[in-house]
Parts: sequence; C-alpha cells; structure tokens
Amino acid sequence: MSDMTSPADAPRPPGRPRSVRADEAIVEATLDLLADGSTIEAISIEAIAARAGVGKATIYRRWPGKEALLRDALRRLKGTPPEPAGHSVRDDLILLVGAVGHHIDPRAARIMPCLVPEVNRSPEQYQLYQNIIEPRREMMREVLRRGVRRGELRADLDVEVVMAMLTGPMLVQRVMRWHPDLDEPTLPQRIVDGVLDGIRAH
Amino acid sequence: MSDMTSPADAPRPPGRPRSVRADEAIVEATLDLLADGSTIEAISIEAIAARAGVGKATIYRRWPGKEALLRDALRRLKGTPPEPAGHSVRDDLILLVGAVGHHIDPRAARIMPCLVPEVNRSPEQYQLYQNIIEPRREMMREVLRRGVRRGELRADLDVEVVMAMLTGPMLVQRVMRWHPDLDEPTLPQRIVDGVLDGIRAH
Repeated sequence: MSDMTSPADAPRPPGRPRSVRADEAIVEATLDLLADGSTIEAISIEAIAARAGVGKATIYRRWPGKEALLRDALRRLKGTPPEPAGHSVRDDLILLVGAVGHHIDPRAARIMPCLVPEVNRSPEQYQLYQNIIEPRREMMREVLRRGVRRGELRADLDVEVVMAMLTGPMLVQRVMRWHPDLDEPTLPQRIVDGVLDGIRAH
Repeated sequence: MSDMTSPADAPRPPGRPRSVRADEAIVEATLDLLADGSTIEAISIEAIAARAGVGKATIYRRWPGKEALLRDALRRLKGTPPEPAGHSVRDDLILLVGAVGHHIDPRAARIMPCLVPEVNRSPEQYQLYQNIIEPRREMMREVLRRGVRRGELRADLDVEVVMAMLTGPMLVQRVMRWHPDLDEPTLPQRIVDGVLDGIRAH
C-alpha cells in the first residue's frame, strides 16, 4: 500500500483525524480535474489519486466507486440546500428560485455547463445528475403542491411546466449569463411575481 | 498555393460554382471540429483548412478571419429565423418561443452547451455569441413592446425579465434536457399561456 506515506496523509495536525483530510484532498482533486476539462466519462480513480497525492486504496476505502465519489464532489459545489419556512408560497418560491444555479464553489462555472451534454449521452450519467438535482426539485414541487392544496395557486397547475418556468430563467442567467444587464439579486423575486401574476393587462 | 488541387475543389459537377462547394466544406469542417470538442479559442484556420481539404488562402479569400467564419458556421446550426405574423401577441410568442434552443443541425447538441462557459471568458467571444443571438431576441422584444403599446400586456412590463421567463424554460428543456417527461411540442404554448395568465388562483 503506497498510500500510507502519501503527501495528503503525512503531516497531521494534532486532533484532526486523518480520514477527514484525505476525504477533502480527494474531493478537491476530483473537482480540480473536472474544472480543468476532464469529462466525467474520462476521469479515473488513478488520476484523482495522483492529483490528491493518495493511493487508490485510500479512495476505495471511502467510496465504492467513481460514481459515488463524483456525486459527493458535485454536491459539494452547491453547498447546503435552503429550507423553506412553509408560511408563504411566494416567499418559499423566492428562496428556492434564488438557489437555482447558485454554487458556493467557483469551479462550478467551468464544470456545470459542459456536464450537461455529457450526462445526456449515457443513462447512468444522466441518473447521477438526476440524483444530485432531484432532491432540490422535489422541495420546489412540494411548495407548489401546498399552494394548490391551500387554494393559493390554480387547481389545474401543470407542476412540471411551472417548475421549468421558475427555474429556467434563473438557470440561463446564472449558467449562461443570459443577459448582462439583468440584476441578479432581485431576479428571483421578479420571476416569482411574474409567474404568479402573469403579464396580461387587466 | 496548394488549394488549387485540394479535394474539396477538385471534382466539380457541371453548373455548380466552385466557391459554393468550398464554402460548404469550410463551414462543415468548422462545425465538425467544434462538435469533436475543439474550443472556439483553440480552433485554428489551419485545422479548419486541413479538415475541409482546402488551403488557408481559400478560407481567407472568403472570410476576413476566424471570428467571421465562426459566426457564419454557428448561425448555420439554427437555420432561418421564424417570421411572426404580427396579428396576435400570443401566437407570435408561441412561434418565437418554439424556435428557442431549436437547431436544425444535430451537432448543436454537442457544440452549444460547452460554448457558454467559453464565451464568458473573453469579451470578444461573448460579443461573437451576442451577435448571433441578439437579432432573434430583438424579434421577441418587439412582440412584447407591441403588446404593451396595444394595451394587451401590462404597461409596467420588465421586458428583459419577461424575455428570460419565456426563453429560459424552453432553453433548459432543449439544451439541458431539463425534465425527461415534458412534452416538447406543446411546451411553447404552455409556457406562453403560463406567463400571460400567471398561476395564482382567482
């Protein structure tokens, strides 16, 4: 086992467990490689181990395989999901729309847009992507369903279309820099009010 | 000049001018290289000439440089823009939303998503991208402005936010395959009606 003497494992500050430091180094190496242009198909446990300065066995002790490691690494880009308060449909939607396309890690800007055509090429990779985003989508769906139950939203609501109407504008602005002059801090509120009230003159 | 005997120029069917055939070969080679993963920064006139089987001078006789060639090649992916009839705001918006993210060339699925992070890295490349999409956006803005003038749409309309509300959902579905179960043929109509009328219960 070469990883007993590998750089990431070697100089250990007192009181900090070795496993946490190796975990960090492995996740960081994965994100660095993706940000440098590695595709999720081409990225290998070997390359991640080399970049992290650990042995392959160190990775396999922590993750069953590449998919599980990629899922953890990609989740890291987004940070902790927001928690809707559950009082006002409008407030909850503004909170959730504000988190769409938002990443706490700047490497996301290089990783996420190119990930999309790639995951669409294989069912396994599409599933990996879905596993990351589905829990967040489900939170938004639940807010919409609650609005319908309470009579605040139209009973004939097409939840998936409305999800796309709320998510799409934010995603194209944040991921594609859709329009340079759109004010991002107020955009979630303007999208939610636009979708709630419509644009027709009354 | 080696391009006098190059493959794309050589066997000429009667009645078809040589320049059109070389134009085609050059544009096709450009799109093939982009679809194979060339970035717009890395792609070179040399590589395009080699792939098209023409000399560099053949390209420079037709395009002043790489940017102009890329603009023509990328425009080719989308085909002819739709023409709104100008009678009904709803009908015109459905037509224009239906063209969002629609490409007549299947290579677009590999080229377009990865183009976005790249163009965002340099002002020149962002301008190239804007030059391609701005004329189409302007058509949609004009339909919205007409709706406001005629009193069909709210006078306080924030045109750029509404543009993102109409375009975003279609773009994430077509470019990112946002939700596998969304019915694409009816999506433009459902987005336009949702944005026109809103989702609040009345």
